[in-house]
Amino acid sequence: MKLASLKHGRDGRLVVVSRDLTRATDAFIVVPTLQQALDEWERCAPALEALAEQLEHGSVPSFRFHEHACAAPLPRAYARRHAAAWPGYPALLRQAAGAEAPAGEAGGLRHAASDAFLGPRDTLSADDPAASLDLSAGLAAITGDVPRGADAAEGAIRLVTLLAEVIRHDRLRPDGLDLDGADAPALAASLGPVAVTPDELGAAWRDGSLHRPLLVSRNGKALGCPDAGADLGRSLVALVAEAARHRGLGAGTLITAGPVSNRGIDGGPGRPAEEGGAGYACLAEARAAEALTAGWARTPYLTAGDRLRVEMKDAGGHSIFGAIEHDVSS
Amino acid sequence: MKLASLKHGRDGRLVVVSRDLTRATDAFIVVPTLQQALDEWERCAPALEALAEQLEHGSVPSFRFHEHACAAPLPRAYARRHAAAWPGYPALLRQAAGAEAPAGEAGGLRHAASDAFLGPRDTLSADDPAASLDLSAGLAAITGDVPRGADAAEGAIRLVTLLAEVIRHDRLRPDGLDLDGADAPALAASLGPVAVTPDELGAAWRDGSLHRPLLVSRNGKALGCPDAGADLGRSLVALVAEAARHRGLGAGTLITAGPVSNRGIDGGPGRPAEEGGAGYACLAEARAAEALTAGWARTPYLTAGDRLRVEMKDAGGHSIFGAIEHDVSS
Repeated sequence: MKLASLKHGRDGRLVVVSRDLTRATDAFIVVPTLQQALDEWERCAPALEALAEQLEHGSVPSFRFHEHACAAPLPRAYARRHAAAWPGYPALLRQAAGAEAPAGEAGGLRHAASDAFLGPRDTLSADDPAASLDLSAGLAAITGDVPRGADAAEGAIRLVTLLAEVIRHDRLRPDGLDLDGADAPALAASLGPVAVTPDELGAAWRDGSLHRPLLVSRNGKALGCPDAGADLGRSLVALVAEAARHRGLGAGTLITAGPVSNRGIDGGPGRPAEEGGAGYACLAEARAAEALTAGWARTPYLTAGDRLRVEMKDAGGHSIFGAIEHDVSS
Repeated sequence: MKLASLKHGRDGRLVVVSRDLTRATDAFIVVPTLQQALDEWERCAPALEALAEQLEHGSVPSFRFHEHACAAPLPRAYARRHAAAWPGYPALLRQAAGAEAPAGEAGGLRHAASDAFLGPRDTLSADDPAASLDLSAGLAAITGDVPRGADAAEGAIRLVTLLAEVIRHDRLRPDGLDLDGADAPALAASLGPVAVTPDELGAAWRDGSLHRPLLVSRNGKALGCPDAGADLGRSLVALVAEAARHRGLGAGTLITAGPVSNRGIDGGPGRPAEEGGAGYACLAEARAAEALTAGWARTPYLTAGDRLRVEMKDAGGHSIFGAIEHDVSS
């Protein structure tokens, strides 16, 4: 099934969305918010699945679904752990910076902010021109309760959606930490309009991850379409298991990974989308590839007036999660 | 006023606690949980204050307050940022390890787990003897909504309480990161039984922080009583302002700081409590001081059978927040 949270208060109003993303029905008769549904998943999921089926058959009152009316599926979550799960990205950034890989670094999971996800169509502010702002696109898994040391991480993922993070590159060290040794410098993050249960993803969901190209564009022009199932260091399911190694995860934990990054045929930087390559899922990787191949980074960071769009389509060309689309204001 | 959450479901049941911590009254008629109270503080705080006053006067039904019935005041929170705000601690650990201060490191704020605080009397498990487990005691501030770049961080702190973190030192690098470059390795954390509004702290709350000794003991023997108001690099209010520099904070954000650490008279390691010094608020600092002064670390890490206690008393000798007290099981 497909679930979304319409903008309403701090936690949104849960709706069940049709497979084709055109219609929705209120989930309030089952549960008012997605966090509460995750807290009581065993009770709520069957009732929500029944609503989803009725919605497909037109046997329940429904209304037109508008992605711009959405908050993030979880507007605020109690936990998020993030990993650079596609190793091509950090490797390329380090190579462009002439930096060594930090000792022991392995794209480890970091705690990341989860308390204020932007809506998928909210405007981004680029009010600090020195910040070298980037949008980094990836995936998010929303888990149920996962006991510490769980082996059965496969069944722990309740929902999957898109992720887009606003990163300040002027504050980024090669090891992914902020210059002052504090947080990774994500200023904000958004999730796809719709979160989808893994069973809904069909053959694209296998080996613990999602195997479809992630379509990223800027001002209508493709930045990249790297395959989220290719060149993946660790799957979403492997990341959930790693996150639960030393402490359990609570229902509604987000395990996020990004940016998606495909290597070139020679194992080096992928080629730009405009040259027929898979391109990039963030501006920094495009810039690093340009710096290494052409000697200078041509692609500018986020600029007022930009429109960034992130989407993933199924094998039939239909949008799976709806699109994240942010206009950048000054 | 003083607030606590009794163990009940995932978010506890909010109660108002008497100043002397002996009696409590249910807050349900105002709001069922502390998170909801923080979400609607302007509406809830005056009603909770009125309940607190009625409780002091005995004009509202009340029951005996038991600290062991408490969950953490916020059993799960949407955000936590942690800093080693007393610079003596990281400096001493680095000195004992013979390590340099990482470039640019300034005890920066890190995202830390906030999704599953232990109750103040829950048992800790030391089932991995190789983990070099420590309990690190400090302070926690719970904020209201704080806009990005807020100057007025002083009024942003709604509640203050104690913090105790279970740290794995076998995974700790000198810069505070895990060996694999991922999370700071706190396995678990607990908060004091009771959270207290700053106005309740009287003269002990000044210059944006709390000026009282933090009493830490192991098996009834003092480990330390370092003054939380002394040798402080940055106050709680300064940390809130720093956390809000690049992005706003949501109601119920925890800004935590620890371990409390006092320097010796000569500016070096503080002397042990048993020699009349202020001692230490964690085992690792005791061990580092021993290693530097006596050549070997005598104090063992957490061991099954240990009982660790953290408390803070007002000038009259009365417990302010109740005590965190963890038994360690194998």
